[in-house]
Amino acid sequence: MQTPRKASARAGSNIAFLKYWGNRDDSLNLPNNSSLSLTLDALQTVTSVEFSPNLPADEVIIDGQEASPAAYSRVTAHLDFLRSLAKTDFFARVGSRNNFPLGVGLAASASGFAALTVAATKALGLEIEKRRLTRLARRGSGSAARSILGGYVEWLAGSGDEDSYAREIFPKEHWELLDIIAIVSTSAKEISSQDGHRLAATSPFYPMRLQSLPQNLSKMKEAIERQDLETLGPLIENEALSMHSIMMTSKPPLLYWQPATLAVLREIPEWRKGGIEGYFTLDAGPNVHVLTLPQQANEIRSRLEKLPGVQQVLVAQPGEGAKIVAEHLF
Amino acid sequence: MQTPRKASARAGSNIAFLKYWGNRDDSLNLPNNSSLSLTLDALQTVTSVEFSPNLPADEVIIDGQEASPAAYSRVTAHLDFLRSLAKTDFFARVGSRNNFPLGVGLAASASGFAALTVAATKALGLEIEKRRLTRLARRGSGSAARSILGGYVEWLAGSGDEDSYAREIFPKEHWELLDIIAIVSTSAKEISSQDGHRLAATSPFYPMRLQSLPQNLSKMKEAIERQDLETLGPLIENEALSMHSIMMTSKPPLLYWQPATLAVLREIPEWRKGGIEGYFTLDAGPNVHVLTLPQQANEIRSRLEKLPGVQQVLVAQPGEGAKIVAEHLF
Repeated sequence: MQTPRKASARAGSNIAFLKYWGNRDDSLNLPNNSSLSLTLDALQTVTSVEFSPNLPADEVIIDGQEASPAAYSRVTAHLDFLRSLAKTDFFARVGSRNNFPLGVGLAASASGFAALTVAATKALGLEIEKRRLTRLARRGSGSAARSILGGYVEWLAGSGDEDSYAREIFPKEHWELLDIIAIVSTSAKEISSQDGHRLAATSPFYPMRLQSLPQNLSKMKEAIERQDLETLGPLIENEALSMHSIMMTSKPPLLYWQPATLAVLREIPEWRKGGIEGYFTLDAGPNVHVLTLPQQANEIRSRLEKLPGVQQVLVAQPGEGAKIVAEHLF
Repeated sequence: MQTPRKASARAGSNIAFLKYWGNRDDSLNLPNNSSLSLTLDALQTVTSVEFSPNLPADEVIIDGQEASPAAYSRVTAHLDFLRSLAKTDFFARVGSRNNFPLGVGLAASASGFAALTVAATKALGLEIEKRRLTRLARRGSGSAARSILGGYVEWLAGSGDEDSYAREIFPKEHWELLDIIAIVSTSAKEISSQDGHRLAATSPFYPMRLQSLPQNLSKMKEAIERQDLETLGPLIENEALSMHSIMMTSKPPLLYWQPATLAVLREIPEWRKGGIEGYFTLDAGPNVHVLTLPQQANEIRSRLEKLPGVQQVLVAQPGEGAKIVAEHLF
C-alpha cells in the first residue's frame, strides 16, 4: 500500500433536472435511465479517510456522530469495494461533515459518496482518471457519480458497469443558473431513496415514464445549450411531477411531500404570472428547489422565506466537481 | 306539453371509488372508463323546474344567486336537450339549492344535474325509466349518471350513448360505509372538472391508467360484495393517487391539492397503524374523503377536525337515488 494513507476531499451535492429513479441492477447501481443534473456549490460534504493497520474495524463519524447502522454498512461496503481495488485489508477511519441537513432529499449521499470515493482512493494510493472515478462513486450511491464532476452533468445509463458513467456536458461557467432551496423539513425521511428505487417498478406508470425520458433528456440538453430557461423550466417541473407520480402510484405508495411542499409548489406558477421566473423541482424528499437566474434570486429567496412552513432558504450556484483538499477533519 | 309543468327533485352527491377522468366524446359525455361510486345522503341538491310559455329565456338561480355564465350555459344546454325530447320550446325557471359548497370537488355537478334531469323531465311530462334517466343525466354531467341511483353504483363506459348508463350494483343497505369529508378549501377550483377531462390524454401515463382500470374495478366490486374494507381501502387510495398523478403529469399540470390536503393524506396511514381503519380518496379537488365503518366514524371525525387547515368535517352515509319531492323552491 502506497502513502499517503490519509486524504480529504470535498464534493458538492447536485440537483437533478432529469431524475434517477429505479435501478436495473441494485448492487452495481446501474440505473434504468440516464439522468442530468447541476452540481451545486453551497451544499458540500468534506470527508477525511485514513487507512491504518492498527484499526480493528472501520470507524465512521458523520457530522460528529457515530454513523447509524444503515449508514455505517453502506460506507463500509463501499470501502470494501475500494480496498479490493487497492488489494489491502486495512480498516479505515472516516470523518465526514456536511454543511446541510442529511436525509431530507438534499442528496447528501451524492456529495457524501463522491467525497468518500475521492478521498479514499487517494488515501489508498490509487491513481484513477475521472471517468472511472464517476463509476466507482456510482457504486456507493448512484447520484454520487454526477457529483464527481462540476457544472452540468449527464450520467449515462449505459449497458453495464463499464459504460454507466457521468460526463460533464457543460462547465459551470456556461450558464449561471441558481438553485434556491426551500427547506420545509429537516426530519429524516421514512423511506430512503435506496428503498424507493426498488419500488419504482411497482408503479403501473413506470414503463411509460422510462419511454418518455430520452426525448425529454435531449430537449433539456438543447435548452441548457441555448441558456433557455423558459423552455428548460417546464421540462424540469414536468419531470419532477413525473417522478413523484411514480412514487405515489408505487405499491405501497411513497408520499414524500409535506403540506409546506405544496404551499411552495402552488406559489411558483403564480409568481411566474407576475414575471418572477422560477421553476420548481424536487428530489426524493419534501424540500423544493427553485431554479432561476441571478437577477431574480433575491426576490424568490425573500418570497420563499415568507411562506408558511418554509424553515430555511439556501441559495446554491453551479459548483465544481469533487476534489482533494489539504485540510483534514481529524 | 303535458301537465304538471312544475316539478322538484332531490339528489345526493356521490364519492367515486374508481374515478371518471377523461372522455372519449365530450358532447355526449362518453367516458374512457367505467367508474364506481357510492351515492351520499348528506350532500344534497334540491332543484325546482317550471316550464312556461311566458318566459323570454331560461332563468337559473343557484343557492339564491343568478348562475354564473358558465353554469347558466351548461344548464340551458341540458334544458335544450330535454326540451328536444319533449318537443317543446318553452323556457324554464330553475331554482337549485345545495347544502354544501360548490366547485370544491364535492361533486355538486353530479347531484345538480341528477336533480335537474329528474325535475325537468317530470315537469316536461316525460315518463322515463331509470336506466334511460341515467343516460340523460350523463349528458349534463358525466358523474350525474351515478347520482340518479342510490347505494353502490357502476357507470358503464359502454360503446355509445345507448349502453353508457349507470346501474346499482348493491343497494345502500348492503353495507354501511361512511364517508367522512375533510373540507380544506371552499374556494372554487381554478380548473373545472370539465376542462380537466380534456387534459387527461396529455399525460404520458394515461393509456396505462386506462389499461389498469378494468382489473381494479373487478377487485373493488368483489371487495364491496364481501364487505371487505381492508381490501377495498388500499384499492381506493391507489386509485385516487393514480387519478391525481394523471392530473399532475398533464400538460399543463393540474395540481388540485392544498397544503392541508397533504396534512390529511399523511395522517390517515399513520392512524391505521394505531388501529383506526380509514382510507382516503379525493375527487377533482382538494378535499379529502375518508371511508370508514360506523364504529370508527366519531374518532376519525374528531381527529380530522383537529388537523390544521381542516375547515369543516361532514359525515355522509350511503344515500338513495334522485327522486321527485313535493316541496318546491319557488
